[in-house]
Amino acid sequence: MKGHRLRHLDAGKKARLYRILFQHGLCNGTALFLPYDQGLEHGPRDFFANPASGNPRYIIDLAVEGAFNGIAIQIGLAEKFYWDYAGEVPLVLKLNGKTEIPSDDAALSPLHASVEDAVRLGADAVGYTMYVGTPAQEQDFAQYRTVREDAQRLGMPLIVWAYPRGSAIEAKGGKSSFYAVDYAARTASELGADVVKVNFPKPDRRTGVRAEYDAEFSSQQAVEAVVRSANRTLVLISGGEKAGDEAMVEKARQSMEAGATGLIFGRNVWQRPHDESLRFVSRLREVLAKYPR
Amino acid sequence: MKGHRLRHLDAGKKARLYRILFQHGLCNGTALFLPYDQGLEHGPRDFFANPASGNPRYIIDLAVEGAFNGIAIQIGLAEKFYWDYAGEVPLVLKLNGKTEIPSDDAALSPLHASVEDAVRLGADAVGYTMYVGTPAQEQDFAQYRTVREDAQRLGMPLIVWAYPRGSAIEAKGGKSSFYAVDYAARTASELGADVVKVNFPKPDRRTGVRAEYDAEFSSQQAVEAVVRSANRTLVLISGGEKAGDEAMVEKARQSMEAGATGLIFGRNVWQRPHDESLRFVSRLREVLAKYPR
Amino acid sequence: MKGHRLRHLDAGKKARLYRILFQHGLCNGTALFLPYDQGLEHGPRDFFANPASGNPRYIIDLAVEGAFNGIAIQIGLAEKFYWDYAGEVPLVLKLNGKTEIPSDDAALSPLHASVEDAVRLGADAVGYTMYVGTPAQEQDFAQYRTVREDAQRLGMPLIVWAYPRGSAIEAKGGKSSFYAVDYAARTASELGADVVKVNFPKPDRRTGVRAEYDAEFSSQQAVEAVVRSANRTLVLISGGEKAGDEAMVEKARQSMEAGATGLIFGRNVWQRPHDESLRFVSRLREVLAKYPR
Amino acid sequence: MKGHRLRHLDAGKKARLYRILFQHGLCNGTALFLPYDQGLEHGPRDFFANPASGNPRYIIDLAVEGAFNGIAIQIGLAEKFYWDYAGEVPLVLKLNGKTEIPSDDAALSPLHASVEDAVRLGADAVGYTMYVGTPAQEQDFAQYRTVREDAQRLGMPLIVWAYPRGSAIEAKGGKSSFYAVDYAARTASELGADVVKVNFPKPDRRTGVRAEYDAEFSSQQAVEAVVRSANRTLVLISGGEKAGDEAMVEKARQSMEAGATGLIFGRNVWQRPHDESLRFVSRLREVLAKYPR
Amino acid sequence: MKGHRLRHLDAGKKARLYRILFQHGLCNGTALFLPYDQGLEHGPRDFFANPASGNPRYIIDLAVEGAFNGIAIQIGLAEKFYWDYAGEVPLVLKLNGKTEIPSDDAALSPLHASVEDAVRLGADAVGYTMYVGTPAQEQDFAQYRTVREDAQRLGMPLIVWAYPRGSAIEAKGGKSSFYAVDYAARTASELGADVVKVNFPKPDRRTGVRAEYDAEFSSQQAVEAVVRSANRTLVLISGGEKAGDEAMVEKARQSMEAGATGLIFGRNVWQRPHDESLRFVSRLREVLAKYPR
Repeated sequence: MKGHRLRHLDAGKKARLYRILFQHGLCNGTALFLPYDQGLEHGPRDFFANPASGNPRYIIDLAVEGAFNGIAIQIGLAEKFYWDYAGEVPLVLKLNGKTEIPSDDAALSPLHASVEDAVRLGADAVGYTMYVGTPAQEQDFAQYRTVREDAQRLGMPLIVWAYPRGSAIEAKGGKSSFYAVDYAARTASELGADVVKVNFPKPDRRTGVRAEYDAEFSSQQAVEAVVRSANRTLVLISGGEKAGDEAMVEKARQSMEAGATGLIFGRNVWQRPHDESLRFVSRLREVLAKYPR
Repeated sequence: MKGHRLRHLDAGKKARLYRILFQHGLCNGTALFLPYDQGLEHGPRDFFANPASGNPRYIIDLAVEGAFNGIAIQIGLAEKFYWDYAGEVPLVLKLNGKTEIPSDDAALSPLHASVEDAVRLGADAVGYTMYVGTPAQEQDFAQYRTVREDAQRLGMPLIVWAYPRGSAIEAKGGKSSFYAVDYAARTASELGADVVKVNFPKPDRRTGVRAEYDAEFSSQQAVEAVVRSANRTLVLISGGEKAGDEAMVEKARQSMEAGATGLIFGRNVWQRPHDESLRFVSRLREVLAKYPR
Repeated sequence: MKGHRLRHLDAGKKARLYRILFQHGLCNGTALFLPYDQGLEHGPRDFFANPASGNPRYIIDLAVEGAFNGIAIQIGLAEKFYWDYAGEVPLVLKLNGKTEIPSDDAALSPLHASVEDAVRLGADAVGYTMYVGTPAQEQDFAQYRTVREDAQRLGMPLIVWAYPRGSAIEAKGGKSSFYAVDYAARTASELGADVVKVNFPKPDRRTGVRAEYDAEFSSQQAVEAVVRSANRTLVLISGGEKAGDEAMVEKARQSMEAGATGLIFGRNVWQRPHDESLRFVSRLREVLAKYPR
Repeated sequence: MKGHRLRHLDAGKKARLYRILFQHGLCNGTALFLPYDQGLEHGPRDFFANPASGNPRYIIDLAVEGAFNGIAIQIGLAEKFYWDYAGEVPLVLKLNGKTEIPSDDAALSPLHASVEDAVRLGADAVGYTMYVGTPAQEQDFAQYRTVREDAQRLGMPLIVWAYPRGSAIEAKGGKSSFYAVDYAARTASELGADVVKVNFPKPDRRTGVRAEYDAEFSSQQAVEAVVRSANRTLVLISGGEKAGDEAMVEKARQSMEAGATGLIFGRNVWQRPHDESLRFVSRLREVLAKYPR
Repeated sequence: MKGHRLRHLDAGKKARLYRILFQHGLCNGTALFLPYDQGLEHGPRDFFANPASGNPRYIIDLAVEGAFNGIAIQIGLAEKFYWDYAGEVPLVLKLNGKTEIPSDDAALSPLHASVEDAVRLGADAVGYTMYVGTPAQEQDFAQYRTVREDAQRLGMPLIVWAYPRGSAIEAKGGKSSFYAVDYAARTASELGADVVKVNFPKPDRRTGVRAEYDAEFSSQQAVEAVVRSANRTLVLISGGEKAGDEAMVEKARQSMEAGATGLIFGRNVWQRPHDESLRFVSRLREVLAKYPR
């Protein structure tokens, strides 16, 4: 049945995710998202590789040309740029964000916008960065809770960027370890995310991890475990820093094979010249086309 | 430009109407809506001609098969039936309604649901019945105003069922007169409707109307005047009671020629056997296909 | 599947109705409710036939002995008597009610308690009397709406006593006509009732009814139409005034055959001596036992 | 067990009624209240028979001397006079009241104070006049509901002056008929009164009453029925207009014999010279002393 | 009397606990709960011993097969999984929780959901982790207070996970010492818990404890003291980390003998293959069957 993965959602969340997954992109239940909040998270340095990428219009045009299933941006860009494309490409309003400048030891990503802002702008989902394991966990969970409640009340799908982060994580295998990514996916699921965005897990990061993770796991085994941990929360695998094409496509393939719903690739897409971006996107779409849901 | 008629709307209203007009139905900027609140407005007697039509599933299936641009229902049916189709066909949540039993002299249609309910259920528009000319105008306008404000705040397109009604209207040409329909369209536009639904005006109903309307007008002239009165408020022409096919198709043609955005036909569609319904719908679609916007 | 009729409800409403339908009474998905708000609606005169019935303890004991699926009482009796039986028999908190003394022409049943009161007392459903067709429709619908919203927010099943009432109804066939009962059932469904309680329709009450209803219908046909009009809203048939046993049992049989979920019989039960009450209840249970859902 | 009649109340209500019933008056669970809101309800004309009675100090002194279980006054007198006696005699803050000047056809008694005022002043109960059967029933029930909710939330015993009143009552036997008083007691009980104050029922007022009441009943039978209708709501019998001593004492005896908790006598007490008042009170106390609870 | 242990509760709390204790499991007033929030508290590593256990469906199925009296889960799993089982097994919504990653020195468990969420989902109780003795006590008590107040207002039983935790506890005998567990049980009782979940006390952990606990106590004596400290707050003994069967069954027996109401065993149940889980559960049920209440 089309949309069977959405059957545990209320009508509003189901309608909005149905639109994202079955009325955009490949319309086959898989998804390719374009995140574009790096200007806040890392600063404009991320645009130096391809200066055109600093212009939000360039990026949203790319999302339309590449038939992405949605674009994730902060409130300021949404207010000034989304009107031009309203309805053409789904908007994921990113609700919180921070700069890279202060120390990440007790990382916390403050709120900049509300679920109601997302409704007002015609968004089809909201995004929230949760720093799993941060010493600022109490504040993070408290503000996350308000977002979860509003999203539930307003039928808005909630995508959690589940990022292990902070000094305690660094001491226990680091943010990309299988242990950390697996825990992050589960945390998002236990706390009500409809979709979770995680980095591809690295099972060889074993220094300081819990005993259960200090063993040999293939990357395929690791990503399968992560998808299982997320259970009914749909999984998006993040591209992270720009890397080699073959490696990225292979990560995408392993992720989809493991049961992920899709990919969320930013810098790997737009930190290249325009036509190269579209060529790379078409390779990702070839992978997604094999996994109708 | 696709969607140029939406350029006066905020992002949220634009995104939602764009979806309705360009991602459903003929995807050409015209619209065919299926209204299904007659069970409340007239009671189940409206279903006697085709008993299957009493079942909301039958109706929504018809909307999907007939590729309607949206279905307009009350909160109770939306809560129990829309989930099954969430995202497949746009939902217009009808916010108010009344029964036909008490006298219509001071007609007022009480609210049953809120714009926030519409957001929660994933609706793409809300509907409000305004009884233009009713002696209960003050209450009507007061509750309408709360709806308009919420729709504005949440980016939800507001479709006004602009119905002349009440004892004063009866004394001045009746609810279908050119005078009354033209006034109703203008009232909705002056008060902030994004879309207005009116009956096809009857210029020969001249008894009691204002002097300006007590003259010879063709129906084409009348419907053109109504669309001009609505200006940037998009116009939907209502089918009303079931009538002959040729007459209905001709009304549709004149309406579209006059610049209407689409049609909203209920009883004319579902008060016939299933296959006849679809045949009639395909004739309406042939009309709409000639008017891309 | 056990509980398939509950699949259109949210978790909270489903959990509570599941308890009522599958963990009490016959535990087969049918229901027999005991309403006991007649002391308010008609005054203590209803207890004269069996003086013991004026004592709420006697009534709740009867509900327990007769294995009813629930008892419907007003806030005052719930506050003072339900504690003794908390959890043993489901509580349906009746939220509104009126006395029989002032004129019924513009009948309106004012609220005495809230959905939150029901939650606090551990109730499994709330009851609301809606006077369909009353000239006081606007106030009725306005207060009903607050109840529906609270019930939705708190996951509390909403049972609507859908009673045609008021001068306009009297002029159009009266409150028991097929026309009126059918309209009432549909109205409750359109406005979001989870369960609707109606009187058994009388198709021979044809004076003043709409043309569609002015024809020969058997009572079986009428009650089937009413259940269809209610669609996914579960139907309870009310006993009304005490009548002959065979007639009541036959009404019960026809109702269940038509697809009703159950019965709500008050005066027919407790306006007799204790043992006769239980004998009559066991006859009703024999009927219900044939219709597992 | 002392206080067994209070076992259906929450801790706060129980504590306050325990004080009234077991730490004042005869301390035996019966009660004699002194109402003193006639200055508002009837105007100072009630004080002409004994001019001293117009002075609240005189009245409260009488309550102390006569060892009443409580005194019922409006907010203005409570603010200015209760301080002097705070703790010595329980305060029943009467929350609503009206003048006798406008017509009683659609009687309604507006609120003058809140349950929170009663808490602030150290009251042990609040009083509310409900006009059972009034055409203004909807407003009456609506304001009563706020009082009931506040009393529940704050643990304050709620005494309802249940008075049949209004044109419909007048047409159905009048305000003192057994039918009307019985209905009033039941209404208060159904709607959550902890204590109900009613007039002594007159079974011979049969013109216009419901058939069940149009029969021979002794006054003893009538008052017993009223107490049964009130069930767990404690009953106070009101003295009403000043009448002969023997008749009043006999009414008191019949009431207590029927299971009432006590008496609430105003004009019969203070519309006589001081010493006569005390002599009459001591006769009432002799009755109460025979009914320890 | 069935439910005599519930007689100190308001109607709502009583109704809900009655359902848990007398309409599920052994229906004899004892309880066996299945906690499943370890995915958040410890991460998915807890599922490595039995990978099937990472799937919430597997766990809830186990709860149904094993006839548990309830299952305790976080909001995310409740939203996505409880609907399927709504009404079949009672839901205990766990309101707070934390990850194991940041330091436990000043342990605090942030809120993720509200009592109102629990009502909405049809839960029969809420769970709150209180870290008794934590340096973050002020924040812990402040957020606990809001939960207690809401639970009181909504009639929702409040189960406190009373866990001694934090650097100060570590310095005074540790989290499992008789001193710490006894203090935790009493703290929960003093602060209004309806049920308290504690670890089985270890009287031999005497280093650093208060003088009164630095003596010879048998484990039976210790658990009896803990149950006495909790007085009218019902006690559940926690299984903790998976251990040997005989030891666990003996702990269960001693707990029930001491007057505990039941057991809450998670990892000891689901960290084994399916059939072994059920065999172990049946041994626990044999113990509970000897202690009807």
